[in-house]
Amino acid sequence: MQDNCAVILAAGDGKRMKSKKPKVLCEVLFTPMLAWVIASCEQAELTNLCVVTGNGADQVEAFLEGNYRTVLQSERRGTGHAVMMAREYLREFAGGNVLVLCGDAPFMDAGTIQSALEVHTRQNNAVTVITAELDEPGGYGRILRNDSGIAGIVEQKDADEDQLLIREVNSGTYWFKTDDLLAVLEELTCDNAQGEYYLTDTVALLLNKGKKAGAYCADNSDVILGANDRKTLCELNEIARDRILEAHMANGVEFVTTDGVVIAPSVQIGAGTTILPGTILRGYTEIGENCVIGPNTLLEDTFVGDDTVLNAVQAYQSKVHSQVKIGPFTHLRPGSEIKSHVKIGDFVEVKNSVIGEGTAVAHLTYVGDSDVGKNVNFGCGTVTVNYDGVNKFRTQIGDDAFIGCNTNLVAPVKVGNGAYTAAGSTVTKDVPDGALAIARSKQENKEGFAERKLRDRKKKV
Amino acid sequence: MQDNCAVILAAGDGKRMKSKKPKVLCEVLFTPMLAWVIASCEQAELTNLCVVTGNGADQVEAFLEGNYRTVLQSERRGTGHAVMMAREYLREFAGGNVLVLCGDAPFMDAGTIQSALEVHTRQNNAVTVITAELDEPGGYGRILRNDSGIAGIVEQKDADEDQLLIREVNSGTYWFKTDDLLAVLEELTCDNAQGEYYLTDTVALLLNKGKKAGAYCADNSDVILGANDRKTLCELNEIARDRILEAHMANGVEFVTTDGVVIAPSVQIGAGTTILPGTILRGYTEIGENCVIGPNTLLEDTFVGDDTVLNAVQAYQSKVHSQVKIGPFTHLRPGSEIKSHVKIGDFVEVKNSVIGEGTAVAHLTYVGDSDVGKNVNFGCGTVTVNYDGVNKFRTQIGDDAFIGCNTNLVAPVKVGNGAYTAAGSTVTKDVPDGALAIARSKQENKEGFAERKLRDRKKKV
Amino acid sequence: MQDNCAVILAAGDGKRMKSKKPKVLCEVLFTPMLAWVIASCEQAELTNLCVVTGNGADQVEAFLEGNYRTVLQSERRGTGHAVMMAREYLREFAGGNVLVLCGDAPFMDAGTIQSALEVHTRQNNAVTVITAELDEPGGYGRILRNDSGIAGIVEQKDADEDQLLIREVNSGTYWFKTDDLLAVLEELTCDNAQGEYYLTDTVALLLNKGKKAGAYCADNSDVILGANDRKTLCELNEIARDRILEAHMANGVEFVTTDGVVIAPSVQIGAGTTILPGTILRGYTEIGENCVIGPNTLLEDTFVGDDTVLNAVQAYQSKVHSQVKIGPFTHLRPGSEIKSHVKIGDFVEVKNSVIGEGTAVAHLTYVGDSDVGKNVNFGCGTVTVNYDGVNKFRTQIGDDAFIGCNTNLVAPVKVGNGAYTAAGSTVTKDVPDGALAIARSKQENKEGFAERKLRDRKKKV
Repeated sequence: MQDNCAVILAAGDGKRMKSKKPKVLCEVLFTPMLAWVIASCEQAELTNLCVVTGNGADQVEAFLEGNYRTVLQSERRGTGHAVMMAREYLREFAGGNVLVLCGDAPFMDAGTIQSALEVHTRQNNAVTVITAELDEPGGYGRILRNDSGIAGIVEQKDADEDQLLIREVNSGTYWFKTDDLLAVLEELTCDNAQGEYYLTDTVALLLNKGKKAGAYCADNSDVILGANDRKTLCELNEIARDRILEAHMANGVEFVTTDGVVIAPSVQIGAGTTILPGTILRGYTEIGENCVIGPNTLLEDTFVGDDTVLNAVQAYQSKVHSQVKIGPFTHLRPGSEIKSHVKIGDFVEVKNSVIGEGTAVAHLTYVGDSDVGKNVNFGCGTVTVNYDGVNKFRTQIGDDAFIGCNTNLVAPVKVGNGAYTAAGSTVTKDVPDGALAIARSKQENKEGFAERKLRDRKKKV
Repeated sequence: MQDNCAVILAAGDGKRMKSKKPKVLCEVLFTPMLAWVIASCEQAELTNLCVVTGNGADQVEAFLEGNYRTVLQSERRGTGHAVMMAREYLREFAGGNVLVLCGDAPFMDAGTIQSALEVHTRQNNAVTVITAELDEPGGYGRILRNDSGIAGIVEQKDADEDQLLIREVNSGTYWFKTDDLLAVLEELTCDNAQGEYYLTDTVALLLNKGKKAGAYCADNSDVILGANDRKTLCELNEIARDRILEAHMANGVEFVTTDGVVIAPSVQIGAGTTILPGTILRGYTEIGENCVIGPNTLLEDTFVGDDTVLNAVQAYQSKVHSQVKIGPFTHLRPGSEIKSHVKIGDFVEVKNSVIGEGTAVAHLTYVGDSDVGKNVNFGCGTVTVNYDGVNKFRTQIGDDAFIGCNTNLVAPVKVGNGAYTAAGSTVTKDVPDGALAIARSKQENKEGFAERKLRDRKKKV
Repeated sequence: MQDNCAVILAAGDGKRMKSKKPKVLCEVLFTPMLAWVIASCEQAELTNLCVVTGNGADQVEAFLEGNYRTVLQSERRGTGHAVMMAREYLREFAGGNVLVLCGDAPFMDAGTIQSALEVHTRQNNAVTVITAELDEPGGYGRILRNDSGIAGIVEQKDADEDQLLIREVNSGTYWFKTDDLLAVLEELTCDNAQGEYYLTDTVALLLNKGKKAGAYCADNSDVILGANDRKTLCELNEIARDRILEAHMANGVEFVTTDGVVIAPSVQIGAGTTILPGTILRGYTEIGENCVIGPNTLLEDTFVGDDTVLNAVQAYQSKVHSQVKIGPFTHLRPGSEIKSHVKIGDFVEVKNSVIGEGTAVAHLTYVGDSDVGKNVNFGCGTVTVNYDGVNKFRTQIGDDAFIGCNTNLVAPVKVGNGAYTAAGSTVTKDVPDGALAIARSKQENKEGFAERKLRDRKKKV
């Protein structure tokens, strides 16, 4: 049998969003709606995808990074017209089935897609509409069922009183036999009030040809939800957020309260881990077991091991091993790897550095472009001077080194194993293993000097 | 025609709030309830305002800063008595209309005030009661309508069974013909259980004199809401918060979740801007388009341009231009101006300074009382030493300067265009354009010195 | 009369929690459920407590720190079996009454316990079941009342249609006459589907012996709530959170919104204090009147006086006096005492130190193991160098001292009253009263030096 494929309608604008982004790039849990839809297709093992772009096509192309085929719908002439743009693509998959779905309905899930396909093929349908049952179906097209499948879809404005009572509605997503879709696309017309080609009309055309049309009603009626404005977009975020939080709870993740906690769909968290309020986890973030994350922690594309505490931390594209304690008020910039048993305290930035096992960076320190050994102790106020205004250089610090407070390590520089630097030194040359580097002036006490100052100061106060 | 005016009743105490503040100064979205009421009057083009003070009169006077007339009600003898205190004020506006309203009902809006006045004058009423329709009217005075307007207001305790079913209730806000009000004020008595003069009684007195009384029912029943204790005050905050957030969504502002987001009524935000959780915006704050603000950002009286990112920032009385990136964990104190294309990183404080275009202040730096040029690079740990214990001085830094890490710039001092300072230097004298300032000791390595130390340390561990 | 006692059932596992902790140690508002139950007993003046441990017995023992008697139920054979383990303990209290309660039902309160005991003794019952009335009693054992008390408890699965309508249900908590309980414990059998000994069966056994059984219906039906999985645990947190927040509101505490605010049951807050969003208060924390705490502040075991502002602060085991201003982004580690009128600014860590009245620590400073006098001014970037890699030492700073920016104070060291240190100095020797300590190199300006650098830099950009 020929491969199946999917056509994703992604040409809509963000006008009612008042957004410069095309609608399908508006985000639910930091994830563009189009990415949700693509992920569902791929989870349903549909890898032949064609995205119909239109408004903001360049932005959609940029988002897709060339990973998927696209066709451009240069004018907005209806959903049927959008699919027509993909005609050539569809011909490549003649003999198979095609899923046509909306790029701005992020909750269409892989299970629904697969179950609908299973019904579609079992019933040998030319088209199978994915539907949902709503308590308040107002506004949606109603599904007219009959013995052999469905007799049609009637729009709200055309429905009679009995039809208005029908609670099963059209999601706008369909499985077609690809050949049947290609055939009726030619027959679609735009002689209606809007002058648009409607994909829905293919159902009637197929039935008229004596083909079979069926419907698959999704277990989860959220599959039909889309967003047209910021308020409904915010509602989709809340629905997705609650669903993801409940899944984490079922996996043994603890929340004192979920206030301000936002976890993107791509994130994994181990059992026994506690997420405190105000915590945002996004991108390819993975957290181990029995950690405490938060409050007010933001992790992006960050791996965290087991038994690690991240309190008021922001970390990006970094790796934090097990039994690490970081925070509060700490920033890990991309490329940081924090080995196990490390402690990083307040007002510390780490960037593009490896911090070896058991090392302590307690406070007010910047470690950038550095390779730091094991059991190193950083004094408060240490700065790795990695930039001379033109180039960036690396700092190397050996095991068991002890860096004095307010030390500058001017890269490129190497501090040996077990070496010391004296507080207040600017270290510009390598420090051999076990040596002490010192670069400071002797203290002088000028007695009585402060007295006049103090007098002035008190006077002023 | 004579000018209209308004009398705002603001004499109530905060006893049930358990507050030392008078009730009208208790806040909804960081804004005293009295300020909400005054703002609504002014939006309704009512600029002649008289505030009746009582409990905490000095605090109310301090809040008003002499911008509005006040009269003191030295004893609490009822709402009618409160208005009597304003008799002289009212006489100045004889021939006009007066709005009497409650200083602790913050949601009385300009539209309602103006529409009620329009009804008041069109119907030639002596008094027009502003009313609201409630599903649960229990406790409120009910409006008795008749053909010519209203026949009276009946209090809950005096109402018969039929009257208790009436859902239209008195908001406590009234438009009067000023002359009619002045006339009946003289006739108000306090022979009731509480021994108080009730403003409501003026309606019956006017009707008895053959004057016309009418009612204007507000579209938004929130106009009657007031707060008596902390719980209802918190509820008013939530109502106001939701309403403001929805208005921003309608304007194209994006929220992943609104948890912990509090936006004061005075704040403006451009379309396409995203507000992340835990963000507080208050005072005269204005944010441009396509910014990302938050998480956990607090802006007070701060202007932000377009395309700017503020991540975990607190900023007060400052101005941040377009395409600026600040955070996380950054503090802008009053008087900071951050020009476009600036980057300010973690653990940086800026105070009373101008930071020129394209300048970078990456980390752990204090810039105070400084004028900084364009494309300057601040090394980590830079301190502008602006205070000598008696006076504060300014630091000037030219374009393209490069400030080394852990540098002290002891003000008053000037670093020239394109000048450098060496890491770890304390700069006390001006640095000419293009010069390098260096003030540090040579590094000495004392070999073997650290060995004993290390031995001790390991022993200890 | 003999003393009363209580037996707390605490042997359950956390399997459905997917927790390595035993269930009773799972937390509601940062407080193990077992701690809630013990606290209620103690508030009800029940101080003779015996905890039946089982799963994770070692963790429960560790939590109890030897303060309470424990007995081990080594196999899980039902609630009756659990109580049998405490037989010896019960014999010590023969002649009194015993409360048997569940260690994972945190909302059983002292008032209910006491009122139930009062009914128990007044009615001279052998057993008094604590019950609650639920709108949806499904799943719970129903209470069969009769004229003399109760006729029994019927489980959901054994109930007939009429019994299923009964809304009064068993909480699983009982007062027994200790002697009666001891007697019927011997008669409990395990010939049921699960093969377990059920404590509930004691009621029927006692009734069969002609003893009196009664029921006390709790005012607050939350007393029956327990948690079996993370979702219900999170729900218990929300219930507890709301109840505590409302109690603080009633005491005059202000909340703009309660989003992200979590206050443990042990915390006290004075009237007129405002708690801003994202604030966590836990442990033995006590806050005075008219403070502003938050946003995003975390206090643990911390005392705060009156009129103090803590903005984005984390403080642990510390004491902050009145009229202090701290934040934003400030960290007080254990053992910090901040006297009144102190100001501590951004990016400051204080640890195990006393900061005297009126002192200012404005920014980017670490004060550790220090005794600081009154009206001291800390320059930006000051570090108390308290650790030499082996030992920790103290720093002493006298009244009115002025510490220059980026100063290292290498402990043990003493800065005298009114003494100064020059910016950029590393102070290793004591500074006499009124003296100036200086330890730095003279500044040299190398003209033209920077020009080549700048050329390179511009080329690169």
